[in-house]
Amino acid sequence: MPKHKTLHDAFIDELRDAYDAEKQLIKALTKMAKKARSQKLKSAFDSHLTETQNHVTRLEQVFESIGGKPSGKHCDGIAGIIEEGKNVMDEDFEETAMDACLIAGGQRAEHYEMAAYGSLIAWAKAMGHEEAAGLLEQTLEEEKAADEKLTSIAETGINQRAAEIAHPPARKDVA
Amino acid sequence: MPKHKTLHDAFIDELRDAYDAEKQLIKALTKMAKKARSQKLKSAFDSHLTETQNHVTRLEQVFESIGGKPSGKHCDGIAGIIEEGKNVMDEDFEETAMDACLIAGGQRAEHYEMAAYGSLIAWAKAMGHEEAAGLLEQTLEEEKAADEKLTSIAETGINQRAAEIAHPPARKDVA
Repeated sequence: MPKHKTLHDAFIDELRDAYDAEKQLIKALTKMAKKARSQKLKSAFDSHLTETQNHVTRLEQVFESIGGKPSGKHCDGIAGIIEEGKNVMDEDFEETAMDACLIAGGQRAEHYEMAAYGSLIAWAKAMGHEEAAGLLEQTLEEEKAADEKLTSIAETGINQRAAEIAHPPARKDVA
Repeated sequence: MPKHKTLHDAFIDELRDAYDAEKQLIKALTKMAKKARSQKLKSAFDSHLTETQNHVTRLEQVFESIGGKPSGKHCDGIAGIIEEGKNVMDEDFEETAMDACLIAGGQRAEHYEMAAYGSLIAWAKAMGHEEAAGLLEQTLEEEKAADEKLTSIAETGINQRAAEIAHPPARKDVA
Protein backbone atom coordinates (compact mmCIF):
# COMPACT_ATOMS: atom_id res chain seq x y z
CA MET A 1 0.00 0.00 0.00
CA PRO A 2 1.52 3.36 -0.97
CA LYS A 3 2.19 5.67 1.96
CA HIS A 4 0.02 8.77 1.81
CA LYS A 5 1.22 12.20 2.89
CA THR A 6 0.05 13.15 6.40
CA LEU A 7 -0.62 16.30 8.43
CA HIS A 8 3.08 16.30 9.31
CA ASP A 9 3.93 16.64 5.61
CA ALA A 10 1.26 19.31 5.20
CA PHE A 11 2.79 21.20 8.15
CA ILE A 12 6.25 21.14 6.55
CA ASP A 13 4.80 22.20 3.16
CA GLU A 14 2.97 25.12 4.77
CA LEU A 15 6.05 26.19 6.76
CA ARG A 16 8.02 26.26 3.48
CA ASP A 17 5.21 28.25 1.88
CA ALA A 18 5.24 30.77 4.76
CA TYR A 19 9.06 30.99 4.64
CA ASP A 20 8.91 31.94 0.96
CA ALA A 21 5.95 34.29 1.53
CA GLU A 22 7.84 36.26 4.20
CA LYS A 23 10.84 36.60 1.87
CA GLN A 24 8.62 37.82 -0.97
CA LEU A 25 7.07 40.33 1.45
CA ILE A 26 10.46 41.76 2.45
CA LYS A 27 10.94 42.89 -1.16
CA ALA A 28 7.36 44.11 -1.50
CA LEU A 29 7.36 46.10 1.77
CA THR A 30 10.58 47.85 0.74
CA LYS A 31 8.83 49.07 -2.44
CA MET A 32 5.63 49.98 -0.59
CA ALA A 33 7.53 52.06 2.00
CA LYS A 34 9.27 53.91 -0.84
CA LYS A 35 5.98 54.56 -2.67
CA ALA A 36 3.97 55.76 0.39
CA ARG A 37 3.55 59.54 0.69
CA SER A 38 2.17 59.73 4.25
CA GLN A 39 5.06 59.68 6.75
CA LYS A 40 2.99 57.60 9.18
CA LEU A 41 2.34 55.00 6.48
CA LYS A 42 5.95 54.95 5.35
CA SER A 43 7.11 54.32 8.90
CA ALA A 44 4.44 51.62 9.43
CA PHE A 45 5.73 49.74 6.37
CA ASP A 46 9.33 50.24 7.50
CA SER A 47 8.67 48.89 10.97
CA HIS A 48 6.70 45.93 9.60
CA LEU A 49 9.63 45.27 7.27
CA THR A 50 11.87 44.83 10.33
CA GLU A 51 9.26 42.51 11.88
CA THR A 52 9.04 40.53 8.64
CA GLN A 53 12.81 39.97 8.70
CA ASN A 54 12.32 38.59 12.23
CA HIS A 55 9.51 36.33 11.00
CA VAL A 56 11.99 34.68 8.62
CA THR A 57 14.39 34.02 11.53
CA ARG A 58 11.51 32.76 13.66
CA LEU A 59 10.44 30.31 10.95
CA GLU A 60 14.03 29.00 10.89
CA GLN A 61 13.66 28.38 14.64
CA VAL A 62 10.36 26.57 14.01
CA PHE A 63 12.01 24.27 11.43
CA GLU A 64 14.80 23.54 13.90
CA SER A 65 12.36 22.90 16.78
CA ILE A 66 10.88 19.96 14.85
CA GLY A 67 14.24 18.71 13.62
CA GLY A 68 13.88 20.07 10.06
CA LYS A 69 16.01 22.28 7.84
CA PRO A 70 14.67 25.68 6.74
CA SER A 71 13.73 25.79 3.06
CA GLY A 72 11.13 27.59 1.00
CA LYS A 73 8.81 26.66 -1.84
CA HIS A 74 7.16 29.23 -4.10
CA CYS A 75 4.09 30.70 -2.39
CA ASP A 76 1.52 31.34 -5.15
CA GLY A 77 -0.93 32.97 -2.74
CA ILE A 78 1.26 35.85 -1.64
CA ALA A 79 2.72 36.13 -5.16
CA GLY A 80 -0.77 36.89 -6.50
CA ILE A 81 -1.39 39.50 -3.81
CA ILE A 82 1.98 41.15 -4.51
CA GLU A 83 1.33 41.10 -8.28
CA GLU A 84 -1.98 42.86 -7.64
CA GLY A 85 -0.17 45.45 -5.50
CA LYS A 86 2.45 46.05 -8.21
CA ASN A 87 -0.25 46.71 -10.81
CA VAL A 88 -1.85 49.27 -8.50
CA MET A 89 1.51 50.97 -7.82
CA ASP A 90 2.01 51.38 -11.57
CA GLU A 91 -1.28 53.25 -11.93
CA ASP A 92 -1.58 57.01 -12.03
CA PHE A 93 -3.40 57.57 -8.71
CA GLU A 94 -3.25 60.92 -6.93
CA GLU A 95 -1.05 60.66 -3.83
CA THR A 96 -3.67 60.14 -1.11
CA ALA A 97 -5.62 57.58 -3.16
CA MET A 98 -2.32 55.75 -3.77
CA ASP A 99 -1.71 55.68 0.00
CA ALA A 100 -5.24 54.28 0.50
CA CYS A 101 -4.50 51.59 -2.12
CA LEU A 102 -1.15 50.73 -0.50
CA ILE A 103 -2.99 50.23 2.79
CA ALA A 104 -5.59 47.99 1.11
CA GLY A 105 -2.83 45.92 -0.51
CA GLY A 106 -0.89 45.66 2.74
CA GLN A 107 -4.00 44.47 4.56
CA ARG A 108 -4.58 41.71 1.99
CA ALA A 109 -1.04 40.47 2.65
CA GLU A 110 -1.54 40.66 6.44
CA HIS A 111 -4.82 38.75 6.20
CA TYR A 112 -3.27 36.07 4.02
CA GLU A 113 -0.57 35.61 6.62
CA MET A 114 -3.05 35.57 9.51
CA ALA A 115 -4.87 32.67 7.85
CA ALA A 116 -1.60 30.83 7.13
CA TYR A 117 -0.22 31.23 10.66
CA GLY A 118 -3.63 30.39 12.15
CA SER A 119 -3.62 26.99 10.40
CA LEU A 120 0.05 26.35 11.24
CA ILE A 121 -0.58 27.04 14.94
CA ALA A 122 -3.63 24.75 15.05
CA TRP A 123 -1.71 21.94 13.35
CA ALA A 124 1.39 22.42 15.55
CA LYS A 125 -0.79 22.19 18.68
CA ALA A 126 -2.66 19.11 17.41
CA MET A 127 0.69 17.36 16.78
CA GLY A 128 2.14 18.42 20.16
CA HIS A 129 4.75 20.82 18.73
CA GLU A 130 4.39 23.29 21.60
CA GLU A 131 7.63 25.22 20.97
CA ALA A 132 6.74 25.68 17.28
CA ALA A 133 3.20 26.80 18.21
CA GLY A 134 4.58 29.39 20.64
CA LEU A 135 6.95 30.86 18.03
CA LEU A 136 4.23 30.96 15.36
CA GLU A 137 1.85 32.67 17.80
CA GLN A 138 4.33 35.52 18.30
CA THR A 139 4.37 36.14 14.55
CA LEU A 140 0.58 35.90 14.27
CA GLU A 141 0.21 38.59 16.95
CA GLU A 142 2.56 40.90 15.00
CA GLU A 143 0.60 40.35 11.74
CA LYS A 144 -2.65 41.23 13.53
CA ALA A 145 -1.09 44.33 15.08
CA ALA A 146 0.30 45.42 11.69
CA ASP A 147 -3.17 45.06 10.15
CA GLU A 148 -4.78 47.12 12.94
CA LYS A 149 -2.13 49.81 12.57
CA LEU A 150 -2.93 50.11 8.84
CA THR A 151 -6.66 50.42 9.64
CA SER A 152 -5.94 53.19 12.13
CA ILE A 153 -3.72 55.08 9.64
CA ALA A 154 -6.47 54.83 6.99
CA GLU A 155 -9.10 56.06 9.43
CA THR A 156 -7.12 59.00 10.77
CA GLY A 157 -7.12 61.05 7.62
CA ILE A 158 -6.04 59.22 4.47
CA ASN A 159 -9.44 57.80 3.44
CA GLN A 160 -11.22 61.05 4.25
CA ARG A 161 -8.76 63.23 2.32
CA ALA A 162 -8.80 60.84 -0.64
CA ALA A 163 -12.62 60.90 -0.60
CA GLU A 164 -12.68 64.72 -0.64
CA ILE A 165 -10.36 64.79 -3.63
CA ALA A 166 -12.60 62.22 -5.38
CA HIS A 167 -15.83 64.04 -4.55
CA PRO A 168 -15.05 67.70 -3.64
CA PRO A 169 -17.81 68.98 -1.30
CA ALA A 170 -18.84 71.79 -3.66
CA ARG A 171 -19.28 69.38 -6.57
CA LYS A 172 -21.09 66.82 -4.42
CA ASP A 173 -23.89 69.32 -3.70
CA VAL A 174 -24.68 69.79 -7.37
CA ALA A 175 -24.01 66.20 -8.52
CA MET B 1 -2.51 68.97 -16.19
CA PRO B 2 -3.32 65.27 -16.57
CA LYS B 3 -6.18 64.08 -14.39
CA HIS B 4 -5.01 61.51 -11.86
CA LYS B 5 -7.13 58.55 -10.80
CA THR B 6 -8.90 59.11 -7.46
CA LEU B 7 -10.32 57.02 -4.60
CA HIS B 8 -13.53 56.77 -6.63
CA ASP B 9 -11.60 55.01 -9.42
CA ALA B 10 -9.84 52.80 -6.85
CA PHE B 11 -13.26 51.87 -5.42
CA ILE B 12 -14.56 50.84 -8.85
CA ASP B 13 -11.36 48.88 -9.57
CA GLU B 14 -11.63 47.03 -6.27
CA LEU B 15 -15.32 46.28 -6.80
CA ARG B 16 -14.44 44.76 -10.19
CA ASP B 17 -11.66 42.78 -8.52
CA ALA B 18 -14.07 41.47 -5.86
CA TYR B 19 -16.70 40.66 -8.53
CA ASP B 20 -14.16 38.50 -10.38
CA ALA B 21 -12.84 36.96 -7.12
CA GLU B 22 -16.34 35.82 -6.10
CA LYS B 23 -16.87 34.23 -9.52
CA GLN B 24 -13.52 32.43 -9.31
CA LEU B 25 -14.51 31.22 -5.83
CA ILE B 26 -17.79 29.74 -7.07
CA LYS B 27 -15.78 27.35 -9.25
CA ALA B 28 -13.21 26.63 -6.52
CA LEU B 29 -15.80 25.95 -3.80
CA THR B 30 -17.60 23.49 -6.06
CA LYS B 31 -14.35 21.50 -6.39
CA MET B 32 -13.53 21.79 -2.68
CA ALA B 33 -16.98 20.50 -1.65
CA LYS B 34 -16.49 17.52 -3.99
CA LYS B 35 -13.02 16.78 -2.59
CA ALA B 36 -13.93 17.04 1.13
CA ARG B 37 -14.46 13.72 2.93
CA SER B 38 -15.97 15.04 6.17
CA GLN B 39 -19.72 15.54 5.70
CA LYS B 40 -19.65 18.62 7.94
CA LEU B 41 -16.91 20.16 5.79
CA LYS B 42 -18.65 19.27 2.54
CA SER B 43 -21.84 20.93 3.72
CA ALA B 44 -19.93 24.00 4.98
CA PHE B 45 -18.41 24.48 1.51
CA ASP B 46 -21.79 23.87 -0.13
CA SER B 47 -23.54 26.44 2.01
CA HIS B 48 -20.77 28.99 1.49
CA LEU B 49 -21.09 28.35 -2.24
CA THR B 50 -24.72 29.48 -2.05
CA GLU B 51 -23.64 32.56 -0.08
CA THR B 52 -20.91 33.29 -2.65
CA GLN B 53 -23.51 33.26 -5.43
CA ASN B 54 -25.43 35.84 -3.38
CA HIS B 55 -22.25 37.91 -3.00
CA VAL B 56 -22.07 38.22 -6.79
CA THR B 57 -25.67 39.48 -6.87
CA ARG B 58 -24.97 41.83 -3.97
CA LEU B 59 -21.96 43.30 -5.80
CA GLU B 60 -24.23 43.95 -8.79
CA GLN B 61 -26.50 45.90 -6.42
CA VAL B 62 -23.46 47.84 -5.15
CA PHE B 63 -22.47 48.80 -8.71
CA GLU B 64 -26.05 49.93 -9.38
CA SER B 65 -26.24 51.89 -6.11
CA ILE B 66 -23.39 54.15 -7.32
CA GLY B 67 -24.71 54.36 -10.87
CA GLY B 68 -22.20 51.88 -12.34
CA LYS B 69 -22.48 48.76 -14.45
CA PRO B 70 -21.28 45.42 -13.00
CA SER B 71 -18.08 44.17 -14.59
CA GLY B 72 -15.07 42.18 -13.44
CA LYS B 73 -11.34 42.38 -13.94
CA HIS B 74 -9.00 39.48 -13.29
CA CYS B 75 -8.25 39.19 -9.54
CA ASP B 76 -4.63 38.02 -9.25
CA GLY B 77 -4.84 37.74 -5.46
CA ILE B 78 -7.59 35.14 -5.28
CA ALA B 79 -6.20 33.41 -8.40
CA GLY B 80 -2.93 32.76 -6.52
CA ILE B 81 -4.78 31.40 -3.50
CA ILE B 82 -6.90 29.12 -5.70
CA GLU B 83 -3.80 27.93 -7.61
CA GLU B 84 -2.20 27.02 -4.29
CA GLY B 85 -5.35 25.12 -3.30
CA LYS B 86 -5.39 23.21 -6.60
CA ASN B 87 -1.79 22.09 -6.12
CA VAL B 88 -2.67 20.78 -2.65
CA MET B 89 -5.76 18.94 -3.97
CA ASP B 90 -3.54 17.15 -6.52
CA GLU B 91 -1.28 15.80 -3.79
CA ASP B 92 -1.59 12.35 -2.29
CA PHE B 93 -2.70 13.28 1.24
CA GLU B 94 -4.57 10.84 3.42
CA GLU B 95 -8.23 11.82 3.73
CA THR B 96 -8.19 13.63 7.07
CA ALA B 97 -5.01 15.57 6.26
CA MET B 98 -6.62 16.55 2.94
CA ASP B 99 -9.67 17.85 4.82
CA ALA B 100 -7.33 19.86 7.10
CA CYS B 101 -5.61 21.30 4.00
CA LEU B 102 -8.95 22.17 2.37
CA ILE B 103 -9.88 24.07 5.53
CA ALA B 104 -6.54 25.93 5.51
CA GLY B 105 -7.03 26.84 1.84
CA GLY B 106 -10.62 27.95 2.41
CA GLN B 107 -9.54 30.16 5.30
CA ARG B 108 -6.91 31.88 3.13
CA ALA B 109 -9.66 32.72 0.64
CA GLU B 110 -11.99 33.98 3.39
CA HIS B 111 -9.24 36.14 4.87
CA TYR B 112 -8.39 37.62 1.48
CA GLU B 113 -12.04 38.55 1.05
CA MET B 114 -12.31 39.97 4.58
CA ALA B 115 -9.43 42.33 3.78
CA ALA B 116 -10.93 43.27 0.40
CA TYR B 117 -14.43 43.97 1.78
CA GLY B 118 -12.95 45.79 4.79
CA SER B 119 -11.23 48.29 2.48
CA LEU B 120 -14.27 48.62 0.22
CA ILE B 121 -16.52 49.38 3.22
CA ALA B 122 -14.10 51.99 4.61
CA TRP B 123 -13.85 53.70 1.20
CA ALA B 124 -17.62 53.56 0.60
CA LYS B 125 -18.25 55.22 3.97
CA ALA B 126 -15.58 57.88 3.40
CA MET B 127 -17.23 58.78 0.05
CA GLY B 128 -20.74 58.76 1.53
CA HIS B 129 -21.96 55.66 -0.33
CA GLU B 130 -24.09 54.46 2.56
CA GLU B 131 -26.20 51.96 0.60
CA ALA B 132 -23.08 50.36 -0.89
CA ALA B 133 -21.41 50.20 2.53
CA GLY B 134 -24.47 48.45 4.01
CA LEU B 135 -24.53 45.82 1.25
CA LEU B 136 -20.79 45.20 1.51
CA GLU B 137 -21.08 44.83 5.29
CA GLN B 138 -23.60 42.01 4.88
CA THR B 139 -21.10 40.11 2.73
CA LEU B 140 -18.21 40.81 5.13
CA GLU B 141 -20.23 39.32 8.00
CA GLU B 142 -20.86 36.16 5.96
CA GLU B 143 -17.15 35.81 5.10
CA LYS B 144 -16.25 36.12 8.79
CA ALA B 145 -18.89 33.56 9.78
CA ALA B 146 -17.66 31.13 7.08
CA ASP B 147 -14.11 31.47 8.40
CA GLU B 148 -15.23 30.80 11.99
CA LYS B 149 -17.25 27.78 10.87
CA LEU B 150 -14.12 26.31 9.21
CA THR B 151 -12.13 26.87 12.42
CA SER B 152 -14.79 25.08 14.45
CA ILE B 153 -14.89 22.12 12.01
CA ALA B 154 -11.08 21.83 12.20
CA GLU B 155 -11.13 21.96 15.99
CA THR B 156 -13.90 19.41 16.49
CA GLY B 157 -11.99 16.40 15.26
CA ILE B 158 -10.28 16.83 11.89
CA ASN B 159 -6.96 18.28 13.12
CA GLN B 160 -6.78 15.82 16.01
CA ARG B 161 -7.49 12.77 13.86
CA ALA B 162 -5.04 13.93 11.19
CA ALA B 163 -2.40 14.47 13.91
CA GLU B 164 -2.92 10.94 15.27
CA ILE B 165 -2.46 9.46 11.79
CA ALA B 166 0.72 11.57 11.37
CA HIS B 167 2.13 10.62 14.78
CA PRO B 168 0.39 7.46 16.09
CA PRO B 169 0.53 7.48 19.95
CA ALA B 170 2.39 4.14 20.18
CA ARG B 171 5.12 5.31 17.79
CA LYS B 172 5.36 8.72 19.45
CA ASP B 173 6.43 7.09 22.77
CA VAL B 174 9.41 5.36 21.22
CA ALA B 175 10.34 8.11 18.77
